[in-house]
Amino acid sequence: MKQVNIAILGCGTVGTGVARLLLNNGDILRDRIGCELQLKYVADIDTVTDRGLSLAPGVMIPDAAAAIADPEVDIVVETIGGEGIAKTMILDAIDKGKHVVTANKALLAKHGNPIIAAATENGVDLAYEASVGGCMPIIKTVRESLVGNRISAMTGILNGTCNYILSKITDEGVDFEAALAEAQAKGYAEADPTLDVEGQDAAHKLALLSALAFGMRINFDDIYIEGISRITPMDIEFAAQFGYRIKLLAITKFDGGSVEARVHPTMIPFDNMLSNVNGTLNAISVSADAVGDILLYGHGAGMMPTASAVVSDIADIARNLAAGGAGRVPVMGFQPDKIRPITVLPMDDIVTNYYFRFDAMDRPGVLATIAGILGKYAISLKFVHQKGRKTNGSVPVVMLTHHAREADVTRALAEIAALDVVASTPMLIRIEDKNGQEVSCI
Amino acid sequence: MKQVNIAILGCGTVGTGVARLLLNNGDILRDRIGCELQLKYVADIDTVTDRGLSLAPGVMIPDAAAAIADPEVDIVVETIGGEGIAKTMILDAIDKGKHVVTANKALLAKHGNPIIAAATENGVDLAYEASVGGCMPIIKTVRESLVGNRISAMTGILNGTCNYILSKITDEGVDFEAALAEAQAKGYAEADPTLDVEGQDAAHKLALLSALAFGMRINFDDIYIEGISRITPMDIEFAAQFGYRIKLLAITKFDGGSVEARVHPTMIPFDNMLSNVNGTLNAISVSADAVGDILLYGHGAGMMPTASAVVSDIADIARNLAAGGAGRVPVMGFQPDKIRPITVLPMDDIVTNYYFRFDAMDRPGVLATIAGILGKYAISLKFVHQKGRKTNGSVPVVMLTHHAREADVTRALAEIAALDVVASTPMLIRIEDKNGQEVSCI
Repeated sequence: MKQVNIAILGCGTVGTGVARLLLNNGDILRDRIGCELQLKYVADIDTVTDRGLSLAPGVMIPDAAAAIADPEVDIVVETIGGEGIAKTMILDAIDKGKHVVTANKALLAKHGNPIIAAATENGVDLAYEASVGGCMPIIKTVRESLVGNRISAMTGILNGTCNYILSKITDEGVDFEAALAEAQAKGYAEADPTLDVEGQDAAHKLALLSALAFGMRINFDDIYIEGISRITPMDIEFAAQFGYRIKLLAITKFDGGSVEARVHPTMIPFDNMLSNVNGTLNAISVSADAVGDILLYGHGAGMMPTASAVVSDIADIARNLAAGGAGRVPVMGFQPDKIRPITVLPMDDIVTNYYFRFDAMDRPGVLATIAGILGKYAISLKFVHQKGRKTNGSVPVVMLTHHAREADVTRALAEIAALDVVASTPMLIRIEDKNGQEVSCI
Repeated sequence: MKQVNIAILGCGTVGTGVARLLLNNGDILRDRIGCELQLKYVADIDTVTDRGLSLAPGVMIPDAAAAIADPEVDIVVETIGGEGIAKTMILDAIDKGKHVVTANKALLAKHGNPIIAAATENGVDLAYEASVGGCMPIIKTVRESLVGNRISAMTGILNGTCNYILSKITDEGVDFEAALAEAQAKGYAEADPTLDVEGQDAAHKLALLSALAFGMRINFDDIYIEGISRITPMDIEFAAQFGYRIKLLAITKFDGGSVEARVHPTMIPFDNMLSNVNGTLNAISVSADAVGDILLYGHGAGMMPTASAVVSDIADIARNLAAGGAGRVPVMGFQPDKIRPITVLPMDDIVTNYYFRFDAMDRPGVLATIAGILGKYAISLKFVHQKGRKTNGSVPVVMLTHHAREADVTRALAEIAALDVVASTPMLIRIEDKNGQEVSCI
């Protein structure tokens, strides 16, 4: 039986999970793949901490470079994280002809293009299923299962921390800070939660998805990113009255000309499957010409779900090594010479539906003033609601728009915010509602 | 650029869809795969009907055997359907060293074992993604993405006709016959709907899934099958009061000893993602040790979704031909010599929760009699409801049980049905509720 030798670099949560899965489920992996996946090295500067792994002597080593240098190692698994040493190690491994598996979305989103180029040049596989959506096989689905489709859109709940917080606010009416504190207490949010709650992590994943879906280079800097820290229980309550839930969505669309790529809180209808994705769970829906819509749902993070995805990549490469098919599936889903530049639409040019909430003084003429400004910028209203609780002497004025252009909305809201009679920064939440159904509530 | 030659046998709905997709999306397939997928033959006895395909001269032929016999053909796509000529053609193609793609679940479920053995023996790929769940990549997910997992259960809504009918009864309160008539009018159900509504079609798919998930041979005859034709709006209404929806589920479970494999109407809680799968849509959830639960959702049937799955299989094989990896993934997910016999648990030994509805005479002592019989068979009740509308002088008595054994339930219900005071055949619906939550309603 063919033996494939594996070196795991970095034995934190994910690295430990991968080692555990290879050890605990080695028998079933062998029965399925027909190869022996041999864990030759686990390299980590901390070789002392007990991680509950029964490693053979000599497997745990402090020196990642030595693991990469061993000519017997076939596959290098990078679970170090970050954009520094991880990048160096991956490039070194590729240079030495090793196949590489990584879960490092930040690295791939920000420095992926040269890494992908190096892998292609050296004829090695670079696999990264775990970098988007944890255990959900979204990379494989796009690269392989949807291969006959023209993909037009992907919409994902890609950050479990944000989804947990929004679910908590929705279910219990607590505010953002309280929900975040609970997420931190449960280990669902980091001490510094910025990367998650401000949308960066979801944007890293979206950068990879857009590139994969449409055959373009990764353009992280072109993604519009807005987090969830301004969402209030009041907005969630209004959303519910309109038949919507608020989710942090990562959205990418391609109309054949340009691509949209944006991460922001979004209202979606109750009957959209994504609105039923709660807690730390993730989901991604893909719209494509042959399949219509399909959706994957599962744990987007966590030790063992992530390890499952890493091990599926290892198995794919092992199968290639056994049957002789390295480079069988190109890294970014398209043949390298078919990846073309596609313009990412500036946020100003996005056209969608909007929810606005203004804290306005309860005086005659205020609504007319606000509506007048919106009208001036060609923003047409579908729904207006002004009856509400007074907060600090002001009342919430809520509006839903028909399709409007982001640039117009930005200008109109700036003008409205400058009014004496409007109390604080207006709230804006974009709406994704394919049916474009007229709301009929309150 | 490598050219891979394809012959489609049978140009009905699915065959036409596959041809259309290969023609319309040939450019993107080429850009992704790096091979030319050449549609060399479309073989159908009817070469006259206009299917809207722009085929080159000589592609449409009446003789499938000639297409198989052409040494230039690499991949044979069987979209004839049925268990007769389709089987002969597949075995002939395998015998001639062709790789085979099929969407024929009935054939694989009932005659799959010898076909799989032939493919293995001849070293050709046999791919069947489209046979379960239409465009959802469930076969690939199980064989490749979950390769490092021990799968413990799969639960699917695998028949769009049944799901449409149940959704219709749920949403509109119409009875089964009216919902079926509407499904037929919309083309979602056949003139003879038996195969769908009596659960056979879902069972074909479940047979394949169980074999794939657990590494056993396909055992179609061991699957318990019960359709949806007895489900009434009243049962759906009661279910809703308990927080449940009724779906036709295909369920398979493996506890390490024996396998459960059953298709029947099932109550599931509102917060189970499957309960939100409506209309003709399908979904499958997989429970496994590393990932926890994951779910795929999408169109389980229809020309283009099915074609998408067939084309993904074609692309996989083309990649194997280009890179040299035929047999890279074994047909049934496990190395052939690792497929072992696993006992399918007789239905009598299933333990689950039950919903019963008896049409009982509204007389003192009736409830006590029924409850007494249930108690005699060690069936313990979680909930009893007797207040209700009178139908034909009788009232519905509804009960939910704690865990009970099917054999006990069968005996108890036979005894109850024989009572003078119980009007007609009792209704029994099994409940899948992981939380086993105590209901607290009505």
